[in-house]
Amino acid sequence: MSQFSIGVDLGGTNLRIAAVEESGHILETITTGTEVSRGRDVVITEMCDAIRALSVKFQASGSLRGIGIGVPGIIDMKTGMVLNSPNLPGWRDFPVRQEIERRLMTHVILENDANSAAFGEKWLGAGRDYDDLCMLTLGTGVGGGLVFEGRIWHGMTGMAGELGHTAVEPNGHPCGCGSVGCLEQYASATAIKRMAKEAVAAGGAGELEKAFNRGSDDFSAKLIYTLAIQGDKPAQNIFKRVGQALGVTLASLINGLNLPIYVIGGGVSHSWDAFAPTMMEEIKKRSFVYVATSSEDPNTPRLQKTIVTRAVLGGDAGLLGAARLPMVMPKR
Amino acid sequence: MSQFSIGVDLGGTNLRIAAVEESGHILETITTGTEVSRGRDVVITEMCDAIRALSVKFQASGSLRGIGIGVPGIIDMKTGMVLNSPNLPGWRDFPVRQEIERRLMTHVILENDANSAAFGEKWLGAGRDYDDLCMLTLGTGVGGGLVFEGRIWHGMTGMAGELGHTAVEPNGHPCGCGSVGCLEQYASATAIKRMAKEAVAAGGAGELEKAFNRGSDDFSAKLIYTLAIQGDKPAQNIFKRVGQALGVTLASLINGLNLPIYVIGGGVSHSWDAFAPTMMEEIKKRSFVYVATSSEDPNTPRLQKTIVTRAVLGGDAGLLGAARLPMVMPKR
Repeated sequence: MSQFSIGVDLGGTNLRIAAVEESGHILETITTGTEVSRGRDVVITEMCDAIRALSVKFQASGSLRGIGIGVPGIIDMKTGMVLNSPNLPGWRDFPVRQEIERRLMTHVILENDANSAAFGEKWLGAGRDYDDLCMLTLGTGVGGGLVFEGRIWHGMTGMAGELGHTAVEPNGHPCGCGSVGCLEQYASATAIKRMAKEAVAAGGAGELEKAFNRGSDDFSAKLIYTLAIQGDKPAQNIFKRVGQALGVTLASLINGLNLPIYVIGGGVSHSWDAFAPTMMEEIKKRSFVYVATSSEDPNTPRLQKTIVTRAVLGGDAGLLGAARLPMVMPKR
Repeated sequence: MSQFSIGVDLGGTNLRIAAVEESGHILETITTGTEVSRGRDVVITEMCDAIRALSVKFQASGSLRGIGIGVPGIIDMKTGMVLNSPNLPGWRDFPVRQEIERRLMTHVILENDANSAAFGEKWLGAGRDYDDLCMLTLGTGVGGGLVFEGRIWHGMTGMAGELGHTAVEPNGHPCGCGSVGCLEQYASATAIKRMAKEAVAAGGAGELEKAFNRGSDDFSAKLIYTLAIQGDKPAQNIFKRVGQALGVTLASLINGLNLPIYVIGGGVSHSWDAFAPTMMEEIKKRSFVYVATSSEDPNTPRLQKTIVTRAVLGGDAGLLGAARLPMVMPKR
C-alpha cells in the first residue's frame, strides 16, 4: 500500500469515517452517532478525533493522500461554507471546512453527500465502466449527483445536482424547498409514509390502516414495501406513484443529457421490485432518446445503451466517494 | 484576414450559407429556399453549390478553416447519419455527412441546429461571457442546446439537449415524440396556435375567434402575440401558459445544472414581453437555486448570478454557431 485517504459520511443519523486504499479497499470504518442534537461542535470534534485515529493507525503502512467529507447540505465550493442543510440545524452559513482544517491542521475537501455517493458509484459501483453518470439517492429526501467526464458537476456555485427538486407534478404537493410537486415529494421515504397516511385517510386501505394504528415505529417505508410485495393493492399503488415520479424525472434527464447510466440508490432503492416496473414503463413511454438507445434492443451496441439501474455500494457509496475525492483532485 | 469558415443553417423553410471570419464577422450570406419538397438531393446540391461559391470567392483573402452544417434533426455524431428529422422527410438514416463530403471532397462537421444556435449564442451572443450555457429555441418545435466548459454537450450518442421533450404536464397534451405534456406542446409556435384554437373552441375568445375566421394565414403565433400586448385576455392567457411551461422546465434545469446562463431564442422569443413575467415568477417560486443566486439580489457577485435572458443573435445564431464548429474542433 502506497497511499490511502480518509472519507467521511456525515449522515442525518450516522457519522462514518473510513480509511480507504487507492484500490478502493476499506482498511477500517469507524461509526459513531452524529448526535446532531448535541450540536455542531460535538459532531466536528468526534469527526476530527476519528480522522486523527485512522490517520495515526495507518501512517506506518502508507502516506495519507487527503481527507474528503460528504455533508448533507449545499456547499459553497469556494468558501467551504454550508449554505443550506435542513438535516444539520446550526450548520448553515458556518465555515465548516475552515474549522475542520484549523483543528486537523491540514486541507480537507467538502462535498455534498449525494454528489459523494454518485462519485462512489462511479468509482467502484454501478457506474465503474462509465465516465458520465447520474445518480438519484432516495432517502429521507431525494438527492442527486451528476458526474460528467469523470468529475462531479458542481455548476456555477456548487449547487448542481438538486434533482430531487425537479418538478414532476406542476401543481403537486408542497415541498420544503418552496416549490410544489418536486420529485422528493413522491419518491423519498418521507413521501412514501405521507402517501400511505393519505391512503389511510381516504379509507379502504385496510392493511396500511392496521400498521398505522400500531404506531409510528411500525409505519415505515420498509413496512409499506413489505405490504406491497405481499400483494396489498393500496401499498402497491404508492410504489407505482414512486415509479411514475421517477420515470417522469428520468425521461426528462435522458432526453436532456443522454448519459449512458442512471443509478438509483438510497434506502428506498431497496424497494426496487415495487417501483421499478412502473418507472421503466414511464421512461419508455416518455423518452424517445431512451427508446433509441434501449438496452433491451439487441442491435444497440453496448456502449450506446442507456442503463437505468440500482446502486451497488449501498450505504458505502458516499463514504467511498468522499474518500475518492482527494485521490483525484489537485491539492490546493 | 487569415482564416474563415463556412456555416450552413438548414432550416425547415430556408437554407442559409455564410462565410464567417474568426472574429465572427460575416463576409457574405447566401439564402435560398430549401425546397424540401423537391427532395434531399436538390437541397444537398444547392448547399454544395453555395459552399463552393463562397469558398472560391474568399480563397484569395484567407484559408478555409472548415465547414459546419446545422441540421434540424438528431445526428449520430460518429457516422454523420441523420437519425430523426421530422422537418426533413427522406433524410432519415441517410449518410448526410458522407454524401456532402463526397461531393465537396473535404471534411464537414454536422451538428444539430439547436446545438448550433446554442454554440452561436455562446460565441457571440448572450452567452459570450460564459463557458456554460443552456439555450431553448422556441420555433415550430422547441429545441435545446447545452454548452458545458465551452463545448457542446452531445451525450453518449449525440442526442443530448432534447429539452423540448422535458415533461411539464405529466398527463398533458400528446407530443409527436410519443410522450405527453412535453414543453414543446406549450411553448412552440405550433403550441401557441393550438392553444388559441382551443380557446376559440371553448368560446368567449372574441378577438381570437375573429382572427381564426379570417383564415389560417392570419392566425399565427405573431398575431396572437399582437392581441396579447393589445390587452386581449384570452391571448394573454395563452402566453401565460407558455411562460408557466418554460418556468417549470427552467426551474428544474437550474436546480439540476446550476449553470450561469439560460438563453431563450427562436421566433417565439420575440413574444418575450408576453411570456417572460410569468416565466420568471414560476422560476422564482420553483427554484431555490435560482433564488440563492438571483440576479436581482445586489449582494450576489456577478459571476455567481443565474441569468435567464433573450437570445441576441436572432436568426443568425445557428449559422454563426455552425461556422464556429470547424474553428474549435480538431480536424479529423
